[in-house]
Amino acid sequence: MSAYDELIAHARQTEALAQVAGRLGWDQQTVMPRGANAQRSEEMAALEEVLHARRTDPRLGELLTQAEAPDAPAAANLREIARDYARNTRVPARLAAELARLTPLAQSAWEEARRADDVAAFLPWLEQMVALRREEGQAIANGGDPYDALMADYEPETDSDTVAATFARMRPRLVALREAVLGAEAPPPLTGHFPQEGQLRLARRLAEHFGYDFTRGRIDLAVHPFSSGSGTDVRITTRVAVEEPFNCFFSTIHEVGHAAYEQGVDATHLLTPIGRGVSMGAHESQSRIYENQLGRSRAFTSWLHGAMVQEFGALSVADADAFYAAVNRVHSGFIRTEADEIQYNLHIMLRFDLERALIRGKLEPADLEEAWNARFKADFGYPVDRPANGVLQDVHWSVGLFGYFPTYSLGNIYAGCLHQALRAAVPDLDAQLAKGDLAAATGWLREKVQRFGALRPPRETIAHACDGAAPHEGPLMEYLEAKFTDLYRL
Amino acid sequence: MSAYDELIAHARQTEALAQVAGRLGWDQQTVMPRGANAQRSEEMAALEEVLHARRTDPRLGELLTQAEAPDAPAAANLREIARDYARNTRVPARLAAELARLTPLAQSAWEEARRADDVAAFLPWLEQMVALRREEGQAIANGGDPYDALMADYEPETDSDTVAATFARMRPRLVALREAVLGAEAPPPLTGHFPQEGQLRLARRLAEHFGYDFTRGRIDLAVHPFSSGSGTDVRITTRVAVEEPFNCFFSTIHEVGHAAYEQGVDATHLLTPIGRGVSMGAHESQSRIYENQLGRSRAFTSWLHGAMVQEFGALSVADADAFYAAVNRVHSGFIRTEADEIQYNLHIMLRFDLERALIRGKLEPADLEEAWNARFKADFGYPVDRPANGVLQDVHWSVGLFGYFPTYSLGNIYAGCLHQALRAAVPDLDAQLAKGDLAAATGWLREKVQRFGALRPPRETIAHACDGAAPHEGPLMEYLEAKFTDLYRL
Repeated sequence: MSAYDELIAHARQTEALAQVAGRLGWDQQTVMPRGANAQRSEEMAALEEVLHARRTDPRLGELLTQAEAPDAPAAANLREIARDYARNTRVPARLAAELARLTPLAQSAWEEARRADDVAAFLPWLEQMVALRREEGQAIANGGDPYDALMADYEPETDSDTVAATFARMRPRLVALREAVLGAEAPPPLTGHFPQEGQLRLARRLAEHFGYDFTRGRIDLAVHPFSSGSGTDVRITTRVAVEEPFNCFFSTIHEVGHAAYEQGVDATHLLTPIGRGVSMGAHESQSRIYENQLGRSRAFTSWLHGAMVQEFGALSVADADAFYAAVNRVHSGFIRTEADEIQYNLHIMLRFDLERALIRGKLEPADLEEAWNARFKADFGYPVDRPANGVLQDVHWSVGLFGYFPTYSLGNIYAGCLHQALRAAVPDLDAQLAKGDLAAATGWLREKVQRFGALRPPRETIAHACDGAAPHEGPLMEYLEAKFTDLYRL
Repeated sequence: MSAYDELIAHARQTEALAQVAGRLGWDQQTVMPRGANAQRSEEMAALEEVLHARRTDPRLGELLTQAEAPDAPAAANLREIARDYARNTRVPARLAAELARLTPLAQSAWEEARRADDVAAFLPWLEQMVALRREEGQAIANGGDPYDALMADYEPETDSDTVAATFARMRPRLVALREAVLGAEAPPPLTGHFPQEGQLRLARRLAEHFGYDFTRGRIDLAVHPFSSGSGTDVRITTRVAVEEPFNCFFSTIHEVGHAAYEQGVDATHLLTPIGRGVSMGAHESQSRIYENQLGRSRAFTSWLHGAMVQEFGALSVADADAFYAAVNRVHSGFIRTEADEIQYNLHIMLRFDLERALIRGKLEPADLEEAWNARFKADFGYPVDRPANGVLQDVHWSVGLFGYFPTYSLGNIYAGCLHQALRAAVPDLDAQLAKGDLAAATGWLREKVQRFGALRPPRETIAHACDGAAPHEGPLMEYLEAKFTDLYRL
């Protein structure tokens, strides 16, 4: 067996075990009996220890010095294996153990602090977490930037200076657009009572229209919508609030976008390092173009309007135009996950700047709340009313996810680029969307992005689909400005 | 850390991973998308390889020579670890690999052969499987009896000569009882249409009455009912045939019996070797006393009759007595899993004698069908009509389960002993059962059997609950003869 073949066999077995761990995570959030928590933690810890040992197996290091790639997919596999191995072996076992021990405790402390609006109670936990992640970032960076090193876990081969410069160009345009929109007359929201059964029936229909393959997946209810798994077992979850049907429908479409990426990778790459989405940003490009540029378009919402009338009877909004306005309604709010397409990015930029400063040692956890509140006031125009709506709103930092937030807006930027290219490739897209027909759109995304998995690094993955044009924020900003100028008659 | 503590930590982590493998099995049979089969095989193989390496880890051998047990539970843990380690290290890796490779192929061949009633098509697969298991039995037996060695995987510390002598005493009494019953007038069966929802609602009610803890378990639908998991995550499945509600109800009660054993083990033993049922026979003693001696009793069926009328309206049978007769109806048939309490044991004895002869080299696979058919005619009084109703009916041999069958009847025998002791301990049991109140019965079983897990070997486990009396077939036979003499007015 060649060194390359041995590496792939090793990686494939590790990935199979990682899929098992992912399935346990799915189980925990959907079907696990509530009394099973402690035992499940022990099961997960045992499996994580097996995975950690495999990922830092010195044999990988030996093989990596000998392996030669016979072709481009093999070269990409080697790239992924080498990066993961370097990353994992640079983290001291002691630090990995401390992070594993701290994470569930810090998350519980955060949950309690958020409930009680008590920033001070969470501060010692955040300080420990930031200290450990700073140390980890420095270890992985090996002389480079610790924040970039952490970000590479979610968005490899991307530097945060470039991201910062991009966000800096977007921010004033987004602030200006937000101000203009919130100064205009707001359209009426959709109101009414939409029973769970009907919402789930329509959610399944939406999943089918967007190309979700139910023979290789399933939809269940969970507190937080997510997509889980790769290859031939990619499951999604959704949730239902009877007075907010858009929550169920658009989170379903969003998760179908993630799932489509995993289901869409060429079967030959199954369980190999490139047999999955290449980064969280690339993943979000799929979930967001499905959800926003396609799902929240005037054309598609006209079909959805009809489907909702069919499922629920007459609606509170007058017609398809008013329905489109209700779907895309912009309103003042504090919570990232409830934000519209404009304000969402302002939320991300706020977090990106703060967490980068935290990891680089330019901001201390004790000063985080003040920095958050000042930035929020500057970008959103009104003050944070309480910590649960401000610095305590997201779970990410409590579980040590530093470097993850920017991938949401990178996903939006990538989706903007892909949307521009898709429009050029499918000139009558709106006519198809108005019939609820997503086949050409999702087929193009599968052909241009999904099937390659992690063959190319993230930015090259997007550029490949856009005739070689490097991803940039222009198409997203133009799309947002055009859409909301039209919608709010600015 | 002492050698004993290190052994337990090792065993606990292995058991945690084994629980993960069990959960994957549950997933596969309940919720897994049908397109995920091949990937799942690879995931399971990766996990099994991890488990095999841990179970044959030479470090276990070293520690076993040094470890000292501080108390009785520790001594029992050492007994379990030592037996498993000796067993696993005696099987050559080559043989284990061949068995792993053959098993799914032989099972597929059996499924096909059963569909086609084609014994010859399955013969080559059976020959390979018997050859490998003979070799394995000899390896584990290490000079002892190969069949006993295989049986010990399911019923440790039990020799098959004793089992054979017990079965030889039971067989003529069972044959005579079967002849008498089938010569008497048969009661009418329950007929009608019982919708799935109502069956599942009542099945959940039955599970609650029999003490199933839903905070540490759940019920789902599956093709074959089973119980899965240990400790705080013990799930069961059931199935529904709209014209045969007893199938759903009594298989649910049966699986609740298995689950109660796992849920009932003292929490201090969680994930340790003794933190589970001690043998398949002991497990069946719980599932069968729940299902038969309790569930199919005249007293409890009078409550069930009322519950069914409440759920489904008027029934085809006249009253509670006729309902009791319908529940316990004996009829001529070929299939073990559909057999009543009498004929079930005749099915087991047939398989036990044949598989023991196969593994001991006293019967060749080519002669198996003829031996089966002759024995069936002798014990059941009528000939097998086709292989699918005869030698091809069970999956067990196709997947190499030799030594498993006798545990079903050992479970019946153990259940007979426990039932006798329970009746003595709870004199007004029937009055309680007639109210659907199982608390005293299941509480006694938990207290006397379940909470100890594998603290004592199987026969001692039962003897401990029966004031020290060694298990024997007497109570079961007397129970069966009394019950069916009364029911059929013999």
